[in-house]
Amino acid sequence: MNELGSYLGGAWRNGDGPVATLTNPATDEPLAQVRAASGLGEALAWARTTGGPALREQGFRRRAETLGALAKLLHGAREELIAVAVQNGGNTRGDAKFDIDGAIAVLAAYAAIGAELPTGAHLVDGEPAPLHKGSKLRAQHVLTPRLGAAIHINAFNFPAWGMVGKFAVAHLAGVPVVTKPATSTAMLAHRIAELMLGAGLLPPGALQLLLGPAGDLLDHVGPQDTLAFTGSADTGAKIRGHARVVATNARVNLEADSLNAAIIGPDVEPGTELFDLIVRDCVTELTQKAGQKCTATRRILVPAALLEPLREALLDRLAAIADKTGNPADDGVRMGPLSSKQQLADARAGVALLARAARIVRGNPERRGFVGVADGVGCFLEPIVLEATAEAALDARAPFHAHEVFGPVATLLPYDGTVASAATIVAAGQGSLVGTLYADDRSYTTAAIAALSPWLGRLVLASEKIAAASLAPGCVFPVANHGGPGRAGAGEELGGKVGLAPYLQRTTLQGGAAELARLLGHE
Amino acid sequence: MNELGSYLGGAWRNGDGPVATLTNPATDEPLAQVRAASGLGEALAWARTTGGPALREQGFRRRAETLGALAKLLHGAREELIAVAVQNGGNTRGDAKFDIDGAIAVLAAYAAIGAELPTGAHLVDGEPAPLHKGSKLRAQHVLTPRLGAAIHINAFNFPAWGMVGKFAVAHLAGVPVVTKPATSTAMLAHRIAELMLGAGLLPPGALQLLLGPAGDLLDHVGPQDTLAFTGSADTGAKIRGHARVVATNARVNLEADSLNAAIIGPDVEPGTELFDLIVRDCVTELTQKAGQKCTATRRILVPAALLEPLREALLDRLAAIADKTGNPADDGVRMGPLSSKQQLADARAGVALLARAARIVRGNPERRGFVGVADGVGCFLEPIVLEATAEAALDARAPFHAHEVFGPVATLLPYDGTVASAATIVAAGQGSLVGTLYADDRSYTTAAIAALSPWLGRLVLASEKIAAASLAPGCVFPVANHGGPGRAGAGEELGGKVGLAPYLQRTTLQGGAAELARLLGHE
Repeated sequence: MNELGSYLGGAWRNGDGPVATLTNPATDEPLAQVRAASGLGEALAWARTTGGPALREQGFRRRAETLGALAKLLHGAREELIAVAVQNGGNTRGDAKFDIDGAIAVLAAYAAIGAELPTGAHLVDGEPAPLHKGSKLRAQHVLTPRLGAAIHINAFNFPAWGMVGKFAVAHLAGVPVVTKPATSTAMLAHRIAELMLGAGLLPPGALQLLLGPAGDLLDHVGPQDTLAFTGSADTGAKIRGHARVVATNARVNLEADSLNAAIIGPDVEPGTELFDLIVRDCVTELTQKAGQKCTATRRILVPAALLEPLREALLDRLAAIADKTGNPADDGVRMGPLSSKQQLADARAGVALLARAARIVRGNPERRGFVGVADGVGCFLEPIVLEATAEAALDARAPFHAHEVFGPVATLLPYDGTVASAATIVAAGQGSLVGTLYADDRSYTTAAIAALSPWLGRLVLASEKIAAASLAPGCVFPVANHGGPGRAGAGEELGGKVGLAPYLQRTTLQGGAAELARLLGHE
Repeated sequence: MNELGSYLGGAWRNGDGPVATLTNPATDEPLAQVRAASGLGEALAWARTTGGPALREQGFRRRAETLGALAKLLHGAREELIAVAVQNGGNTRGDAKFDIDGAIAVLAAYAAIGAELPTGAHLVDGEPAPLHKGSKLRAQHVLTPRLGAAIHINAFNFPAWGMVGKFAVAHLAGVPVVTKPATSTAMLAHRIAELMLGAGLLPPGALQLLLGPAGDLLDHVGPQDTLAFTGSADTGAKIRGHARVVATNARVNLEADSLNAAIIGPDVEPGTELFDLIVRDCVTELTQKAGQKCTATRRILVPAALLEPLREALLDRLAAIADKTGNPADDGVRMGPLSSKQQLADARAGVALLARAARIVRGNPERRGFVGVADGVGCFLEPIVLEATAEAALDARAPFHAHEVFGPVATLLPYDGTVASAATIVAAGQGSLVGTLYADDRSYTTAAIAALSPWLGRLVLASEKIAAASLAPGCVFPVANHGGPGRAGAGEELGGKVGLAPYLQRTTLQGGAAELARLLGHE
């Protein structure tokens, strides 16, 4: 079987440790193998001593040009990449495009951001401030690329977007990347890395690919390194609490579990464009990538009066998708499998946990028999909707506030339509990546923004006026912040220029006003 | 003996745990006692449920006014506070003013910053960005006060500035504070808290004071809390790696060990104003607060040609201060004791460690007999200067790059005057709060800024032109960043408006351009 290698220290090489097999999660067909690699300390050192200096020498503008060229490169390979995503990721063609086009979009967006950055060694941050009243001395913050490596540990659900998105930001900042895709869906990440490394666009050391387990990678972390992780809160805590990470104060940027909420305002009525948008968004978030998105809506806060019409519309649409769940290689399939048997087992266990506090109103977690595959083959889960009582919805200890089922699963939470109740329910999630507010009443919206924002990295505002143009909340655009407080990991990714921060050191230059202006090229 | 109480949950109360005795470190006279307190989880809950809502209701401007009033209040009590600092801190009057005036200055500075902030619930951060090219939708970052408590754990060396500085920033951000001073010098912090709490300026829950050990405080941390710590790297690692802190992804802002460097450029000559400034700054940094400043210069990088004149001038000045080291209550004393017997023992052990790789060129760590006290009384250490060889200076494993002796101790490190060598030496410190560059050659300065900044939170630039106006690097002004990468804790405090960040959640509001503008009051 084809063995996928890691690219470490300037060479492709197969690992020498235990083997893992990558499969097609729709057919269970084995596709490739990877072996655990060693020499990870040397790989990090190579990034720092070879990749870093070369990147810093290029400056922000030149690195931005590289990102633009890589966007074109991946766009040219789009069809090939989609095929890999369908095969190894269980993605429908639409799901695959979402991942791959997302990756290309981040490259293009950071190419555009970088084209506006200065040519010098640092970014000037804010204005010079007098050190104290009447002083000739000034304090001027500057942001300089850190001298370490960017260590990226990605999740299985977005092998393209996750890897390339993190890379784009670190690269523009001037920091070399060692990236580790999740093993189960690594074929796509491997192919993208092959393309990026083979194109001659990157200086040596700017990008390395580690397939298989992270091994002793974290034992070699240094104080100038930045770790960015996407995945489970459990693994996130292991990274954040790792003895070497703690001892060196390496930067850590986590994106972990998230019980994202859709909050429907009390003024929404059936038959409106806004109501249709809600149904459309909920269906998208439940079923896109089979619900395997960290930004997928998990909790739907619905005013009691709207519960029946919403449930009816939602179940109707989901039934149609349940009928078209199966092998994404099959024409007409609208939802594919989960990415592995383990994910399927976890999702079923998760549904059972949620069902202790909410009833299942659609879907059979044990269903066998999907489109285009034999019974019992593949990692399929049909769309599942649960519904809690209004009383249970307010119980902060209820499992639907704490346990993220990573599949096509969401819970309807009836509430009294007040901002206070919505805030209580959202807060019970203990921090989320995104929330969506559907309302026309501006006073409700204003109060909800104030009450919900501290728990959210992003808040999507949808109303009747903008309903036609609004986009489902699960799509993260490069200009928007991706990350949330608390359970969601307390990290920040993307967000335009803000996303560069984890890779830059803020230093205050303190000196004479005139001399600082000369040094920073302001005169 | 007088027992100092904690202010927790709305009441002053003495602890019920083990006793610690506070002393005068110049005379060993016992001054007061504190007992470990309990009920810390309830105190944090009170901050979150009572203090937070009241502060958020006030808004940025009103909170800024409170800071201004507190600045006036402390200014009015300045003489009383100085007396406490001299007695319990071992501070000379100058040292005490440095600490207390620093505290007042941070209050005043954040009062001024807050006066410019908007009246609404959040700060708008950056410009609205189109979600993608041609989109009607916009992404707009806003910053909202977090809903948790600010947990401040401060160091013994700045009982006023450390506590009040952290408080000022959190308060302006809208976050209630639970502050824990270091026990040995807690009399000053206690008196300041008494004044602040007694003035009727703060809403209930906005400030609590915990004297004695932190106990189980961290076991009650939540996802919206922010921890800010100043102290040793060892304790910092315990906080950052604490299971509950890791599990909740509470924010952590650390300020820890720092081997701050003064870097003297190859063009500096004796007899210049710049040379005199270097000597003056080095003496200040060695002896102010008996060298017990996290920002004190510990490593002096001196071009080989300048070594002899600098050593001579420095030792000459330090000899005069060594003769005037003693009880700060005594007129004419220019340097006081370290803050405790433990600090003295640690500093002596530290000097012994440094002396393995550098020779002591002035000072006797075992000296007995100081001004105004009997032999053997007090926690005195006279100024100590060590000197390494140019070869040893480049050894990244040498103890003077790794071990911060928290007292009037620094090491002369001769080097070849190149930016590359300076960068190697600074980097060996693995991250510092501050560095100071003394040079007139602009190409040297430019190259040094680029090479050194990633290792520093602040870089002071001094040259002949600005020498008369330049200030010793150990003084942190509120507009300047205080924090450094790696060993220094990787935190950021102050820095003007930037300092608010640990207490705010960044949320991207995503919605229609016109509606966002209306909601944010831009139309």
